[in-house]
Amino acid sequence: MRALTLTAIFVTMLFVSPGAHGQERVSSATGECLECHTTLHPGIVSSWQKSRHARVTLAEAAGQQGLDRKVSPGKVPEEFANVTVGCAECHTLDPKTHQDSFEHNGHEVHVVVSPKDCGACHSTEVEQFGKNLMCHAYGNLMDNGVYKYLTEAVNSVPPGSAGKPANISTDLTNADSCLYCHGTKMAVTGVRSRETQMGSMDFPVITGWPNQGVGRINPDGSMGACSTCHSRHEFSMEMARKPHTCKECHAGPDVPASKVFEASKHGNIYASENKNWDFSKPKWTVGKDFTAPTCASCHISLLVNTEGKVIVNRTHEMKDRLPWRLFGIIYAHPHPRDPDTSVIRNKDGLPMPTDFAGGTAEKFLVTGDEALAAQKKMQSACLSCHSQSWVDGHWERLLNTIAATNAVTFSATQSMLDIWKRGLAVNHEKGGNPFDEHIERTWTDLWLFYANTVRFASAMGGGGDYGVFADGRYHMKKTLESIKEWAGSGPPGAKSPPARPKRP
Amino acid sequence: MRALTLTAIFVTMLFVSPGAHGQERVSSATGECLECHTTLHPGIVSSWQKSRHARVTLAEAAGQQGLDRKVSPGKVPEEFANVTVGCAECHTLDPKTHQDSFEHNGHEVHVVVSPKDCGACHSTEVEQFGKNLMCHAYGNLMDNGVYKYLTEAVNSVPPGSAGKPANISTDLTNADSCLYCHGTKMAVTGVRSRETQMGSMDFPVITGWPNQGVGRINPDGSMGACSTCHSRHEFSMEMARKPHTCKECHAGPDVPASKVFEASKHGNIYASENKNWDFSKPKWTVGKDFTAPTCASCHISLLVNTEGKVIVNRTHEMKDRLPWRLFGIIYAHPHPRDPDTSVIRNKDGLPMPTDFAGGTAEKFLVTGDEALAAQKKMQSACLSCHSQSWVDGHWERLLNTIAATNAVTFSATQSMLDIWKRGLAVNHEKGGNPFDEHIERTWTDLWLFYANTVRFASAMGGGGDYGVFADGRYHMKKTLESIKEWAGSGPPGAKSPPARPKRP
Amino acid sequence: MRALTLTAIFVTMLFVSPGAHGQERVSSATGECLECHTTLHPGIVSSWQKSRHARVTLAEAAGQQGLDRKVSPGKVPEEFANVTVGCAECHTLDPKTHQDSFEHNGHEVHVVVSPKDCGACHSTEVEQFGKNLMCHAYGNLMDNGVYKYLTEAVNSVPPGSAGKPANISTDLTNADSCLYCHGTKMAVTGVRSRETQMGSMDFPVITGWPNQGVGRINPDGSMGACSTCHSRHEFSMEMARKPHTCKECHAGPDVPASKVFEASKHGNIYASENKNWDFSKPKWTVGKDFTAPTCASCHISLLVNTEGKVIVNRTHEMKDRLPWRLFGIIYAHPHPRDPDTSVIRNKDGLPMPTDFAGGTAEKFLVTGDEALAAQKKMQSACLSCHSQSWVDGHWERLLNTIAATNAVTFSATQSMLDIWKRGLAVNHEKGGNPFDEHIERTWTDLWLFYANTVRFASAMGGGGDYGVFADGRYHMKKTLESIKEWAGSGPPGAKSPPARPKRP
Repeated sequence: MRALTLTAIFVTMLFVSPGAHGQERVSSATGECLECHTTLHPGIVSSWQKSRHARVTLAEAAGQQGLDRKVSPGKVPEEFANVTVGCAECHTLDPKTHQDSFEHNGHEVHVVVSPKDCGACHSTEVEQFGKNLMCHAYGNLMDNGVYKYLTEAVNSVPPGSAGKPANISTDLTNADSCLYCHGTKMAVTGVRSRETQMGSMDFPVITGWPNQGVGRINPDGSMGACSTCHSRHEFSMEMARKPHTCKECHAGPDVPASKVFEASKHGNIYASENKNWDFSKPKWTVGKDFTAPTCASCHISLLVNTEGKVIVNRTHEMKDRLPWRLFGIIYAHPHPRDPDTSVIRNKDGLPMPTDFAGGTAEKFLVTGDEALAAQKKMQSACLSCHSQSWVDGHWERLLNTIAATNAVTFSATQSMLDIWKRGLAVNHEKGGNPFDEHIERTWTDLWLFYANTVRFASAMGGGGDYGVFADGRYHMKKTLESIKEWAGSGPPGAKSPPARPKRP
Repeated sequence: MRALTLTAIFVTMLFVSPGAHGQERVSSATGECLECHTTLHPGIVSSWQKSRHARVTLAEAAGQQGLDRKVSPGKVPEEFANVTVGCAECHTLDPKTHQDSFEHNGHEVHVVVSPKDCGACHSTEVEQFGKNLMCHAYGNLMDNGVYKYLTEAVNSVPPGSAGKPANISTDLTNADSCLYCHGTKMAVTGVRSRETQMGSMDFPVITGWPNQGVGRINPDGSMGACSTCHSRHEFSMEMARKPHTCKECHAGPDVPASKVFEASKHGNIYASENKNWDFSKPKWTVGKDFTAPTCASCHISLLVNTEGKVIVNRTHEMKDRLPWRLFGIIYAHPHPRDPDTSVIRNKDGLPMPTDFAGGTAEKFLVTGDEALAAQKKMQSACLSCHSQSWVDGHWERLLNTIAATNAVTFSATQSMLDIWKRGLAVNHEKGGNPFDEHIERTWTDLWLFYANTVRFASAMGGGGDYGVFADGRYHMKKTLESIKEWAGSGPPGAKSPPARPKRP
Repeated sequence: MRALTLTAIFVTMLFVSPGAHGQERVSSATGECLECHTTLHPGIVSSWQKSRHARVTLAEAAGQQGLDRKVSPGKVPEEFANVTVGCAECHTLDPKTHQDSFEHNGHEVHVVVSPKDCGACHSTEVEQFGKNLMCHAYGNLMDNGVYKYLTEAVNSVPPGSAGKPANISTDLTNADSCLYCHGTKMAVTGVRSRETQMGSMDFPVITGWPNQGVGRINPDGSMGACSTCHSRHEFSMEMARKPHTCKECHAGPDVPASKVFEASKHGNIYASENKNWDFSKPKWTVGKDFTAPTCASCHISLLVNTEGKVIVNRTHEMKDRLPWRLFGIIYAHPHPRDPDTSVIRNKDGLPMPTDFAGGTAEKFLVTGDEALAAQKKMQSACLSCHSQSWVDGHWERLLNTIAATNAVTFSATQSMLDIWKRGLAVNHEKGGNPFDEHIERTWTDLWLFYANTVRFASAMGGGGDYGVFADGRYHMKKTLESIKEWAGSGPPGAKSPPARPKRP
């Protein structure tokens, strides 16, 4: 099966074209690509030339043993193994399965390389990623009836006197807004002829293109994009391990991981010293290769100690090391079990992991044991540099902070429910949008920006201003007061706040 | 003419003083400067020592051929050509034209080196810069009757019980506020004696000094400052090409280019990899010297492909590659044609490129053809790394986003006009300031911060949070609701929103 | 005395264990630590291995003469001088004085290394730091009756229907919030047994642990933490001199030093060029080792010129170079004289350096002469790169900006006093909290975030957006209008503003 797949990869490249364009060991098909594109798109060709893909053949990559191996286990067919991974190896793979394949100088080329393509050599990572919440980011947003209200409130344009402003496209707005990170849904809608330096040529027209969102729906039907983090065409582990990659979608204030990291001790050490670190080894040695964690160290990478012993295995499924989902919807909660969160129903029948009263949609979330296992993996990374008592103290505060921010959210939500009940704002139950009026957005600020920021500051040990004055507790509590002042009443307070999360 | 100018440069340096202070080939005048200032101001002298100015003589610089040449075309007089460009070469050039020239140890020294001085060797760049909006930044702000209301609203200090607080200077405030970036207006108002390590000395008193603002009005009457971007005294192309330089004035939220870049794919690659890039070559080779663009790559620098072919020529006039001005005043609009924007009059007679009803002051803005030419230049940079279909898709979204943000601004402005009409706030037509009351500032937030941020996020392909939750659409729409709630009414909606921008 | 202290340091290490774990010249005690912890905590051991502590013996360090010397003056006892400074040298020093000392494999180990420990070799720095406001950061916050209102308003959680939410700990919240930077108060409350890879072991239970806050109250009774800035276990001067360290607690918006620096000319040059600078020399040569200042250059480091002449001496007492405290409480004011600010009483009897009417608690603040001396020291750093006229111009603007921002704060405070007087909000004088209601927080925004940001932008010569649109004057003035609109009245003697809009 694996051998068959690898055969498929190289079916178009019988001859190796050594030395063409200074590239040794590229396939003849890739050699043809480079013939023109080296001049036409010098940026991406140069990026590729700096990549491991351009320097290593599949046989060499498969020859790596144990934890140094980057390709997934499987037999490499000898006759195709001695070329590097170039343009054609990815862009002409399995052409029949790609809706966007088109004839291009004698090759069936597809524009959008998908995780399915990458999985030909990196099946383990693609499989893990398939179970990652992020891989499902398109549907998790767009197929959720509640979140639809939010995207509508954020992205819609008010009608002018004659109704909707002419020619403003919701699809284009979505692609430029939420779906930049969540990923667009791509489809081939036709063919367009274009004059090029090589004469008239036909190219597919792809809606939703370009996009590198992490939950992209690809023309081959697969989900996700590896290039979100492994930026084309260098696809480097190095870059994915640096925090700037994660910042692209986690700048905040909704998920302010990047800001919190930059102001944390970890971020300080990274910024001060990373120029001397080695980000390239598959086995990433704590202390030797780096002395403070980046996002990848804690959440993804294979870490080993200075004796080469595994501290924690690589994963592309974030929940492996995450007991809690700090991102409040509307409360922080145990991590969803299924990466497709659109299937969740809370006690009110809404597709949300918590309900307004602070309860959780338990059966869709990880159990205490599962959370404990994830926590243990995360802590094994912490323990590389911190004592158990340090880690315990840190974790105790985080749980307290989850409880405290949930309690503030509860109080604000009681006020909001009261506002809706009194008819001062109109929510979905009465035909409105629960996120579109000013007071509703103020309430959203509280749990989406401020409670989240406080929790990220706590979790990442980066407290400081992000726990207090920079979208932190100061703003969370100020916003609570703002809601109460607006409503002209305190919260009804008829129900108790969500129970404090128990230490797993 | 050129030869004469170059003669003027070196008129004070007949002898070369080799080896003084480790500096070879400095003029005797510069040698005298270094005699004291190496110890007195080690920072700037060391910066200069690291500069190309300190290492290359004018003859050598002029000997560079073609695109590697950094000095502008012109004949170099042999007798003065063999010194490096040191203190005296700039600070004693054409002393008669500088109001701030003063006698200093036998030399006529001026404090403020102006673009006119730099133009002695870099006339092409200075000429281009003269046509740049930025060069006119002082007058474009201070000579515009509408913007004067804004600076007044931002900078003024409320009177205390006994009238204006003592000794608060509007000029000093302006210099510390808006004019830090726009540039101050400098004038010599006298002479001050000061005790120095070398005894009592006289120095000119210059109002508006210090300042490195891009539209500075210099004591020689010229406009602008090259040191805004080419920081003194290294004046390096390297530094100007890095994005930190642009951040000094484009941190946002009004022009959040820096924040958007830092969270973009381009910014990610820059942050992760720039330590291995080469920022020093006049011909900047895409892919070889750098693999992701900085601000300069797209807007200014001379780019070549790996075969040395020009992709786009260097420019110091930003509009060369900018069809649109995303910075809304109050709507985004085609770029002004004349760098002096104070001459613009909209249909209401106000010095603004658009009017409140969404129309544009067409005759002051670039035509469709001019915009198309600029767009083509910008896209030639994009195409170094992206296919035409990628670029087309990107551009289509940007135009849609311009239309959508203009439509939201239109809706907010209709509400604001209604508020003014109902007398709930007082604008300039009734003797008030249209930017000083709280509701007026809320309206300003919408177009100045949020609509701009959304557009910059779109244009720079860095969408992500800046298009949504970080001063993005979320805040733009929330602010719109805030205005409507305050007004207690929806927008009158009697007029149509601004027309969707057409693809040039 | 000094010799005795140094004796104490090494009392447990009679034998040097050369070559163990690749570490030469470590003491036998440290050798034992490394035996297990190299594998258990590879991150911190590796950090230490990169440190100067791991490479230099005390005798070698003490052999450095003059300004290159990093250990404080004192006689080094020969018999203990020939080991490097490893785990045991700090963590087993003076065990009787440490409440958290515990028996650990035959050694009396304490968890929390305090400034008193560091002072064994670095007594000068510890003494200076003891006089630093920051060293007293815990008490300056927690022992101040007025600030207690603020921490309560920020950190408290609203009660549910049945009173306070179960199990939310104020101590844990404080540790995760304000005290992350200010430092926790630590105490040993018991002993906990834990199964380890080496069998069951006992460890002390320390409340307030972990924490690296600058004013930490340590189990040995001392105050502060050197590791706040000299991050464990590399303790490097290099890292402390880079601005990322200061960002951990000065991200803003209350003290936005980091943001302002990053957008300043200084920050631009740092970001563009610091990879080529040398941050390791005790004598830091302006121009040679670095060409633009970081936080440390201006506030702390020993600077010399290129001839080795001292420009300004090292200090760990910030006020040495600070005439003004820009951080407004509630107005910017001359720097407090005593680092323990909880003793201050203003004319109203409150522990604040200023009073609401704009007066200062003069006798607790530096005199004009003291301020002048501090200003002169700061300016000596400025003058390394700037002329006297530049520096004078800069300073004149800063003083004007202090006056202007104080005047805006005065106006807002007059409105706030009026609001309290009219009973629209309830302050401490009537049994309330002056910082908890929405309008009180709006007033707090003005002086704590916006006035501070404007002053930091001015002081750090980084004006730009932080002086105007990024938490700057724009927001300061908008907030003032907001307060006036809410109050439905202008400040004393002004015209009446528009009526407050009614809640829908």
